[in-house]
Amino acid sequence: MYLNDLIRFLRIPSISALPEHAPDVRHAAEFVRDWLDRAGLDNARLIEGAGNPLVRAEWSGAPGKPTLLLYGHYDVQPPDPLDEWISPPFEPTIRDGNLFARGAADDKGQLFILMEAVAQGLRERKTLPVNVKFLIEGEEETSGQHIESYMPSHASELHADAAVICDTAMFAPGLPTLTTGLRGIVYGEIQVQGARSDLHSGDYGGAAPNAVEAAAQIICALKDRAGHILIPGLYDRVEPPSPAELNAWKRLPFDLEEYREKEVGARALTGESGIPLFERIWARPTLELHGIRGGFTGEGAKTVIPARAVAKISLRLVPDQRPEEVLNQLLAAIDQATPCGVTARFELLAASPPCLVDPGHPLIQKAAEAMQKVFGRETVYVRCGGSIPIVGLFAQALGIPSVMMGFGLPDDNIHAPNEKLSLLNYSRGIEAVTEYFERSGRD
Amino acid sequence: MYLNDLIRFLRIPSISALPEHAPDVRHAAEFVRDWLDRAGLDNARLIEGAGNPLVRAEWSGAPGKPTLLLYGHYDVQPPDPLDEWISPPFEPTIRDGNLFARGAADDKGQLFILMEAVAQGLRERKTLPVNVKFLIEGEEETSGQHIESYMPSHASELHADAAVICDTAMFAPGLPTLTTGLRGIVYGEIQVQGARSDLHSGDYGGAAPNAVEAAAQIICALKDRAGHILIPGLYDRVEPPSPAELNAWKRLPFDLEEYREKEVGARALTGESGIPLFERIWARPTLELHGIRGGFTGEGAKTVIPARAVAKISLRLVPDQRPEEVLNQLLAAIDQATPCGVTARFELLAASPPCLVDPGHPLIQKAAEAMQKVFGRETVYVRCGGSIPIVGLFAQALGIPSVMMGFGLPDDNIHAPNEKLSLLNYSRGIEAVTEYFERSGRD
Repeated sequence: MYLNDLIRFLRIPSISALPEHAPDVRHAAEFVRDWLDRAGLDNARLIEGAGNPLVRAEWSGAPGKPTLLLYGHYDVQPPDPLDEWISPPFEPTIRDGNLFARGAADDKGQLFILMEAVAQGLRERKTLPVNVKFLIEGEEETSGQHIESYMPSHASELHADAAVICDTAMFAPGLPTLTTGLRGIVYGEIQVQGARSDLHSGDYGGAAPNAVEAAAQIICALKDRAGHILIPGLYDRVEPPSPAELNAWKRLPFDLEEYREKEVGARALTGESGIPLFERIWARPTLELHGIRGGFTGEGAKTVIPARAVAKISLRLVPDQRPEEVLNQLLAAIDQATPCGVTARFELLAASPPCLVDPGHPLIQKAAEAMQKVFGRETVYVRCGGSIPIVGLFAQALGIPSVMMGFGLPDDNIHAPNEKLSLLNYSRGIEAVTEYFERSGRD
Repeated sequence: MYLNDLIRFLRIPSISALPEHAPDVRHAAEFVRDWLDRAGLDNARLIEGAGNPLVRAEWSGAPGKPTLLLYGHYDVQPPDPLDEWISPPFEPTIRDGNLFARGAADDKGQLFILMEAVAQGLRERKTLPVNVKFLIEGEEETSGQHIESYMPSHASELHADAAVICDTAMFAPGLPTLTTGLRGIVYGEIQVQGARSDLHSGDYGGAAPNAVEAAAQIICALKDRAGHILIPGLYDRVEPPSPAELNAWKRLPFDLEEYREKEVGARALTGESGIPLFERIWARPTLELHGIRGGFTGEGAKTVIPARAVAKISLRLVPDQRPEEVLNQLLAAIDQATPCGVTARFELLAASPPCLVDPGHPLIQKAAEAMQKVFGRETVYVRCGGSIPIVGLFAQALGIPSVMMGFGLPDDNIHAPNEKLSLLNYSRGIEAVTEYFERSGRD
């Protein structure tokens, strides 16, 4: 296995969240462009715009065959806390069959699976069984908007039959996995104002409104202790997974007690009672309070009645919920829940719709078959409780499904110290994508 | 009016909360000791111990007459925010009949009222109509424990018929006021632990417990939206004020709407419905959430499920509630209110009992008469919603009532920028204390 180029790519600290790394981010974009150029892609180029450059390149030598839009990102998360890394984050190191580095799994290593599959095809056979268009961004780890503004205005250039994304994980080692659903999100701040300024709880306790308490009361009015969301209308558009999907989830190799103890590390799991875990985290809306700021939180005892509070909350959305509609339902519920004496406003910080891809789509089916052939086990279909906004964008702006073939593993430590990629998954990934190209090119 | 000595006293930045001011704190103690010595008190001295020195001095030349224990403190609050002071906090300045400086009202200026009354008597008549014992501390603004450990072991030396404290405020300008009740307090932290560490709300929303939410749920279970505390047994020992006291409060000059708008600055007042304001803030227990720490509270959107939360809460207690009993009731209620999947513990940070003094006590009556004579209006009796632990200590350790003659005003900005003392109140205060000594010495 030839890893030198990937290792060079991983050495570039292309941390998009840190302005001092802007030159490294550009360096990584140029690296990808030059690599694709040398690999025989046409018109490898940077697309400049507001934010970090996009990288595009095409190969369209298979007329009449499907076109696949190959997506990935060359930027990475910040590496802190640095002292928890066994080997430095930007000095890629192989241990126990894993390649350790920031970006090894998310997403440089997995992007390289797509790049290598294309390059090997062109190198060995001078041709590919499908047409490919690379679209690679450098702001996935920040809230960068470049690709979001670029895509709708370049829809015809980007036209394809499906997008292929290698940026998710397999459900378990050795188990080929396709992700078919993502939750959406509505994230914002509840800003509560009580009295004009903080007051002394001795003098005013029993008279003045308490903003942090009011924030707590609003939160408690939005969700009951069983995890059921109390926002009127919120569940109206929630589509239950199909019986086939639910049955498939039941067959996933999984130990609930081990998950509780080792992965979550809590006394008990929470969430809506009577609903199985995978349905709760993949196919049900959830509401979480991410933090409250307000009042006195230092050491010792200060008897203040807080005048202001900010609570960060989000709702995860599932098909067919719509972010704008959920936002309006949330605003009405906050209004209804606001206690006497305070005002509360909600500031939206992020929103994206949920998405589903149809596992029966021929280009998804072929991905499942390709992975099954390479890994020697039947491919499983899972959803993801998080949000990958690009998938919604591909559906919305280009009208195409996303094939989420992931070769990461649940313990790859993405966004954490000691991020890694299994080298076995890396080479099998390249094989699986090559096999996928083959099958997609067959009539 | 001779103000030079008070101004010298106010220039000393004796901020007990800031270790770098330790020399200033000691300087203030020595200043008081030397001043009392020159004024003709006997045995003016510092009492060393754990913490800042106490100052003691006596005059016992009136055998057979009552003995009054004169209490005050020479330490002050930190002055920040400094840029909001019109004149610097430790450069005493007179404007519009007020003396502006940190400590002007709390408590150096009011302590000087007691010191000047004694000194003038000794200077002008070489005698006093009562015996006096000064007991002055330097840790009132911190949780210093020196006086608390000192008093019980020196009870016989400190024996007196009543304590006199000038450290409260008049209900309104020109209205002589005695404080006859204080609320107690039980203050602590609720520490909640959910999952082992913060988790991603996409992956784990619907499965993992949320510690900040759990803290909010516990708080909401302890008090309803109307301000009624839901802790079982909490109200059992609450003694309603006497009809006479309630009637007296009704006659206080007070505009509820102005209080809401100008003093509290909120859309509506809160607290138990159907209970008048003064009863709510003076004679009813209240529960306040002072702040919650946990989760993400920075700028932007981070989708974390917080693993830990710390909520600061306190209960204000009224007669005849007992801190230890309330603590146990609170612990049981927190236990009962803790949602599934998390653990919650309570760490006690401060506790003091409520107290009442009997307005019919002869040494309280004489104070009311003395103030009425000087101010030309009938003295009103109020309670204070806050806690002055020393009053409980005088009752407990020495078995004596506290005469709380306050000469501050509600807008004196204690603990805030531009603290002041009305010079009219200062001189009338000295007159009133002198008159009080006279009346207390009469048979």
